[in-house]
Amino acid sequence: MFYIIGLGLGDCKDITVKGLEIIKKCDRIYLEHYTSILTCGISELENFYQKKLIIADRDLVEQSADTILEGADIEDVALLVVGDPYGATTHTDLILRAKDKNIQFQIIHNASILNAVGCCGLQLYSFGETVSIPFWTENWKPDSFFNKILCNYQRNLHTLCLLDIKVKEPTLESLTRKKKEYMPPRFMSVAEASQQIVEIINKTICDITSNSLCIGLARVGSETQEIAACAISHMTEVDLGPPLHSLIIPSSVLHPLEEEYINQFKLS
Amino acid sequence: MFYIIGLGLGDCKDITVKGLEIIKKCDRIYLEHYTSILTCGISELENFYQKKLIIADRDLVEQSADTILEGADIEDVALLVVGDPYGATTHTDLILRAKDKNIQFQIIHNASILNAVGCCGLQLYSFGETVSIPFWTENWKPDSFFNKILCNYQRNLHTLCLLDIKVKEPTLESLTRKKKEYMPPRFMSVAEASQQIVEIINKTICDITSNSLCIGLARVGSETQEIAACAISHMTEVDLGPPLHSLIIPSSVLHPLEEEYINQFKLS
Repeated sequence: MFYIIGLGLGDCKDITVKGLEIIKKCDRIYLEHYTSILTCGISELENFYQKKLIIADRDLVEQSADTILEGADIEDVALLVVGDPYGATTHTDLILRAKDKNIQFQIIHNASILNAVGCCGLQLYSFGETVSIPFWTENWKPDSFFNKILCNYQRNLHTLCLLDIKVKEPTLESLTRKKKEYMPPRFMSVAEASQQIVEIINKTICDITSNSLCIGLARVGSETQEIAACAISHMTEVDLGPPLHSLIIPSSVLHPLEEEYINQFKLS
Repeated sequence: MFYIIGLGLGDCKDITVKGLEIIKKCDRIYLEHYTSILTCGISELENFYQKKLIIADRDLVEQSADTILEGADIEDVALLVVGDPYGATTHTDLILRAKDKNIQFQIIHNASILNAVGCCGLQLYSFGETVSIPFWTENWKPDSFFNKILCNYQRNLHTLCLLDIKVKEPTLESLTRKKKEYMPPRFMSVAEASQQIVEIINKTICDITSNSLCIGLARVGSETQEIAACAISHMTEVDLGPPLHSLIIPSSVLHPLEEEYINQFKLS
């Protein structure tokens, strides 16, 4: 049997009882380690499970799926992923491959940022399309995500912005070589995301200005979770500490309960 | 301390390890029992926790929040909710009341339909605003939800439709009496939801027709989960068994991986 088990967002105890029971009986356990991260380290997970983990980096999951699935028709193999198993398309792809090979599979759900973001007090049913904000380079500054934020805003919907993660990204120079070299991991902060948004706002005439409210979230679902609400221009200087961060551009019209809840996070 | 603990979507083992540890030490444990349901019963939960549960119905949660919070400054009190704690505004309201009373609180996240819906293979980041479809009566047929589905559709976004639940709803006749009488619980099926949608489509000229694809989901996250994909007109006759059901109106343009994944659920 092949299992994809969501680990939730915080530490090792955010796994479900069902998920933990499955891990205990598995012959091989992979830990997906590039689309998101937990606030605890790998050795802490291994101690808690009393099992050895195999780190599944981008190359392994995207290019060597067959290695992960090998023997899963007769053994129990699990892939552990931060958040919920359906948070990344590569996992959907893995399930299709398992089906092709007549390998049975089971999915163990867990919290992901898509629902845990409710911790800021905005109603989950008032969110529009989720957007991803990519790291800009000097010559590559894609801004199509901002148009989606605007569309949501004009329909009185909040936007959750997922911020870029670069883990085990090959350096540009090494792409043509046989031996890949990797850049140090980078996680976009709410300040960096806001800086890019302000840059877009400065050359656009639209309903969202740099004075518009935004909400920064860090390490949602963990014990060190932090939330701050302020103007987008102010957020460019806010430090919410270690990753992962997310940013919300709320609708201009808030429900009174949302307003009251967010007040507790407002920076002066 | 006051805890709101998400139970996830399936059975008693979908609680997180952290959530279970907290339950074990709590002095009083409420089970919220009207915004959603698990596939297992209350006695199964009590056996699994080895703890007695207090059923928190709509009246208790909405009108007697102080009863739930009583003593939570010196004791440990938990409210268990199906899915994730932030799935309903009444829970946000409870947290604000706890803060007002200087009662510390902790939220234990879990999977909810908002992310578990990824099990149908549609990409979670391609969903627009979530809508709720209410039970119609002979004289009350609100259809504003359909406009939101259309807006999503025109932006190439999928729509998750949450289907109405009526648990412990007072009868109209008993509202003016001292002693409330309650209607039997009702859970909208994908067939009923589709019937209402077809009725709206029949008097509207729009991009969505009764031949458009929809996806019905039942008991998502449980072992008896069922998914079916077919035309909306066909879904009016599909029986996916016991509650809870949800319905998706996908975007007209699907990603090849979405298309491939959904094919396995297509009814002939």
